[in-house]
Amino acid sequence: MHASATPDIARELFQAMRQWPIYDPHSHIDPHRPAARHFDEILGYHYFTELAHSAGMPAGLVDTELHPDTRCKNLARWLPAIDNTVQYSWLVEIVREFHGFQGDAVDSSTIDQLIKSADKESAGTAWDEQVRKLSNIEAVFLTNDFDDPLTGWDTSVYIPCLRTDDLVLKLHEPRVRQRLAAFTGQEVGDLESLRTAIGKLFDHFMAHGVRACAISLPPDFVPEPPPMISAATPIRRVLNGMDVRPDEVALIRRTVFWIIAEFCNEHRLPFDLMIGPIRNIYPNGVAGGRDLFDRRVSLADYAPVFNAFPKVKFPVSTLSPDAGAELVAYSWIFPNVYPNGHWWYSNVPTFIAADLKARVEAVPKTKIIGYYSDAYKLEFVLPKFDTFRRTLAGVLAQSCMAERGWSIERCLGLAKDILVNNPKTIFARD
Amino acid sequence: MHASATPDIARELFQAMRQWPIYDPHSHIDPHRPAARHFDEILGYHYFTELAHSAGMPAGLVDTELHPDTRCKNLARWLPAIDNTVQYSWLVEIVREFHGFQGDAVDSSTIDQLIKSADKESAGTAWDEQVRKLSNIEAVFLTNDFDDPLTGWDTSVYIPCLRTDDLVLKLHEPRVRQRLAAFTGQEVGDLESLRTAIGKLFDHFMAHGVRACAISLPPDFVPEPPPMISAATPIRRVLNGMDVRPDEVALIRRTVFWIIAEFCNEHRLPFDLMIGPIRNIYPNGVAGGRDLFDRRVSLADYAPVFNAFPKVKFPVSTLSPDAGAELVAYSWIFPNVYPNGHWWYSNVPTFIAADLKARVEAVPKTKIIGYYSDAYKLEFVLPKFDTFRRTLAGVLAQSCMAERGWSIERCLGLAKDILVNNPKTIFARD
Amino acid sequence: MHASATPDIARELFQAMRQWPIYDPHSHIDPHRPAARHFDEILGYHYFTELAHSAGMPAGLVDTELHPDTRCKNLARWLPAIDNTVQYSWLVEIVREFHGFQGDAVDSSTIDQLIKSADKESAGTAWDEQVRKLSNIEAVFLTNDFDDPLTGWDTSVYIPCLRTDDLVLKLHEPRVRQRLAAFTGQEVGDLESLRTAIGKLFDHFMAHGVRACAISLPPDFVPEPPPMISAATPIRRVLNGMDVRPDEVALIRRTVFWIIAEFCNEHRLPFDLMIGPIRNIYPNGVAGGRDLFDRRVSLADYAPVFNAFPKVKFPVSTLSPDAGAELVAYSWIFPNVYPNGHWWYSNVPTFIAADLKARVEAVPKTKIIGYYSDAYKLEFVLPKFDTFRRTLAGVLAQSCMAERGWSIERCLGLAKDILVNNPKTIFARD
Repeated sequence: MHASATPDIARELFQAMRQWPIYDPHSHIDPHRPAARHFDEILGYHYFTELAHSAGMPAGLVDTELHPDTRCKNLARWLPAIDNTVQYSWLVEIVREFHGFQGDAVDSSTIDQLIKSADKESAGTAWDEQVRKLSNIEAVFLTNDFDDPLTGWDTSVYIPCLRTDDLVLKLHEPRVRQRLAAFTGQEVGDLESLRTAIGKLFDHFMAHGVRACAISLPPDFVPEPPPMISAATPIRRVLNGMDVRPDEVALIRRTVFWIIAEFCNEHRLPFDLMIGPIRNIYPNGVAGGRDLFDRRVSLADYAPVFNAFPKVKFPVSTLSPDAGAELVAYSWIFPNVYPNGHWWYSNVPTFIAADLKARVEAVPKTKIIGYYSDAYKLEFVLPKFDTFRRTLAGVLAQSCMAERGWSIERCLGLAKDILVNNPKTIFARD
Repeated sequence: MHASATPDIARELFQAMRQWPIYDPHSHIDPHRPAARHFDEILGYHYFTELAHSAGMPAGLVDTELHPDTRCKNLARWLPAIDNTVQYSWLVEIVREFHGFQGDAVDSSTIDQLIKSADKESAGTAWDEQVRKLSNIEAVFLTNDFDDPLTGWDTSVYIPCLRTDDLVLKLHEPRVRQRLAAFTGQEVGDLESLRTAIGKLFDHFMAHGVRACAISLPPDFVPEPPPMISAATPIRRVLNGMDVRPDEVALIRRTVFWIIAEFCNEHRLPFDLMIGPIRNIYPNGVAGGRDLFDRRVSLADYAPVFNAFPKVKFPVSTLSPDAGAELVAYSWIFPNVYPNGHWWYSNVPTFIAADLKARVEAVPKTKIIGYYSDAYKLEFVLPKFDTFRRTLAGVLAQSCMAERGWSIERCLGLAKDILVNNPKTIFARD
Repeated sequence: MHASATPDIARELFQAMRQWPIYDPHSHIDPHRPAARHFDEILGYHYFTELAHSAGMPAGLVDTELHPDTRCKNLARWLPAIDNTVQYSWLVEIVREFHGFQGDAVDSSTIDQLIKSADKESAGTAWDEQVRKLSNIEAVFLTNDFDDPLTGWDTSVYIPCLRTDDLVLKLHEPRVRQRLAAFTGQEVGDLESLRTAIGKLFDHFMAHGVRACAISLPPDFVPEPPPMISAATPIRRVLNGMDVRPDEVALIRRTVFWIIAEFCNEHRLPFDLMIGPIRNIYPNGVAGGRDLFDRRVSLADYAPVFNAFPKVKFPVSTLSPDAGAELVAYSWIFPNVYPNGHWWYSNVPTFIAADLKARVEAVPKTKIIGYYSDAYKLEFVLPKFDTFRRTLAGVLAQSCMAERGWSIERCLGLAKDILVNNPKTIFARD
């Protein structure tokens, strides 16, 4: 009845969820150095540099040429301008949780102290484990280049995920072809040898515990079944360093995407589709802060791939917040479409709450993949998950308890599916 | 001030609305057999089969070849996977309201008992009346094929509505032309005779108490005034079974749509526009669960028809939830555009609440058509209307009372317009 | 935690905001006659006439040929049909605040009394000042034609803003060219002389305290850098009264828009972009009630102009409510994009609240331009700002206090930035 939930119930739900381990199905963590050893690795997260830049900070103040301390101090001067944002709240939660900070603000008055207390160079790998334990992170998925050797860490904790953007979107770049040939030991000169080389990548990743393949695709990408015969010539040309026309580049992309989907099908590997970014739309932005989107996207464009690969699970993230309702409908109809977290520009409590409420009302509870951190450093997993868990607690208290009369136990059962059981099941190896 | 409404007030508003008769301006009820006589007619509703299928149930488990009991038992095994959805809540409300169920869950443990208690074969038409009385349904609109004889039931309770999808979208199919010729007793070989035949359909429906004409249109349909002279040849060709090009099919559709709008104008019949479905986008789905939409639709495409027929009332439903705000604006400016209920993928409390709040704030109160059930069986009318009434109660308690200081009486006055007075007035015969 | 704010806190926040002066960065106020001297100037606001017309009132009942009293009485009969709308609530607040009205409804029973009490013909300019003082309006921006002499009023209170729609969108109309030539004393026959003439307009406006340049652009406008050489010929043709093709009109528009952006850059003048209206889409509507929008717009189209003019501040308003989330993302990345108020069809509490919540969560607090009245008469500034302030109070109470644990002082600090400090700073002259 849209009666209002009490704060107490939402808080109780949140506290219960906070006891559960975190299972994080998408991040950009470096498994060789998962936690931050200098505060600059925290403050360098693109959310802070891009928001500070948006508020007026010259990009040069966080130039990679500068000393990390200098970058931190420069940025700190601009943090008050963004202290209203949810991103800033993650920062405050990090310094309180991990660095014993007791103040309210990260700014010029506290930056020196924070640089000091966040210096973990000497702690090294022990610090990685400490952050992971404090955060109660059971496992976190990585984003691995196709030529990552995948050795040197525990792949049951830092789980490999094959990122395929380079193969699909940049095959016309010589560097990508060289990396592919070098890593597979395979001459790659035509469609057939390309397919063989990609197959070797999948074998390599399968042998090292990969749980998902992933790609981010621009708004104008349309994944239709490629005419393989017509694609053969432009692919041979591009693999041999010859020029191709823009329409041929598009055809090559569609073809490589389709081949990768075929391998996902063969290996029963979920294929994360992250739909929407326009890369480098603001070339003068700070590093990591140059991409946006065109809101005119529709999953109708993706129906051909959902139909063609009914056995492949497609966890889907859309970038434009107003596209969230469509993802609910496609997840409700297509058995192989899973609504996957709340991505980037959609990862803001007001958009999370709206999407989550609709998913809870209209998507089978076994299909909702609650959240992934998208973090570059381990410290961000906890505050980002906590933002999600707080929002989920609010949605359950309001939508399920106040409006539909559920018990707390039933709410927590759903929450556990969304946060823990579903990602484990959906990304499980057969 | 966005202060929060108390649960008690929302509940009080809901209870008051629940006393009112239901006037349901759109359904797919079969007037010869309005209520379900086997539980399979309840569980067979596409919402349940498609959501269960989405959760992993093979489509073959609800094949029409199977015995109804078997279909029920098969589906019941998958219902726990969708017990979070609002659609599942309708099911629980139905078995409690109509079948004396006292449990919490419809699943394998309760399905046998429910098949038994929902067996109304022997009760027959008495059951229809019982469901209608229990639900307090005053009248419900039907969806009639153009060649429905419209006899054998009380058309003041089960009100005829002329559905024109076949005529507009499928005139190139021989079966449709044959039905048209057979029913009107009119040779249909060219534009002129087509117009005459359609005129006879309108006369027939007018003679049997029709209150609306209706059509569902795909996202790429653009209702511009057709060049009748250019349309004559492809229409003659198609009516004589000859081939037409895709662009000619599009021209034929626009032309027949326009002719139907002209007859609505002549007969002062409201023309329900249901905008957005892409049919059969998921061909391997269960029956009734194969359609979705492309969110890139705009009512700007419909301005030509709103301008051309100022005397025709157009109750409009849009399918993509994110298109709801645009419908508010078009209803606010065009006197002949009426926001009509909350359709299909938009028929979820979170989307209903958002749309309803905006309609209550910005559309003349005399124009808001609250809700229609879209039901196939009479049992669904009550739980679906109750979902709407609960949501409306919440919106009124929050938006009108807490934020704008209205009295309960004023809220109920608006609710009665939205739920009862407006649909009666807007669909009244002159 | 989505716990619910108490009504008391929202009310306290609202009351505090109400003490602050209003700084209104966009209106259509006539500085020579800012307040209404006849009630018809209040009731004639397009919101009332268009909503009443939408509810069934024939447009002729508010024809400009009629006596103002008659128009008022005619319209009053239709007001009960729109008394649910937020726009109607502004009307009630106006008559209570400024005309001593103690009733609840503006309708046929009260209209005679209101015409009398709102007659300020004899009070004249004293009434203007009285309304401004009662409303606590510190300054309000105007919308000035390019050939406005800008004299005869205090430009520190009624601040000039150069509106450029005519120059950009209507240069092919002889009347516009004649006005431009007459006002600048400059023969305007080619691209070079056009640029000179526009430069003179900017000099004139700069000399009279202009604080912004503004334009409203249709959904299909794409501001790409124009090929100046190719544009020269069609511009010469159009300036000499010769015919141009539609694609040439588009090129001329892009070119003039670009020249204006260059002058904004030269003079460091903010350039308000108001994106989305389709003009005259409903030609039979009442005056001011004929425009709507196509929701398929994206700020991605505007990236070229944001990139080309990094020193120009672009306060951006989008018309389609569902485009609001995209504006949040573009304001978060581009330093020169500022989310500007809540415009026209988006100016409804439910849309304001959704946009505002996201802006508060994800846009630097120094960049959020809270609200502008868009008013034609001074009396509307207060109730429209109050609708915004109430909504802001609700968002702060819920989002910042209940969910994020902020203090009242911190909430009010943010509110003051949004309402007062930011518009003053962003539109300040260097």
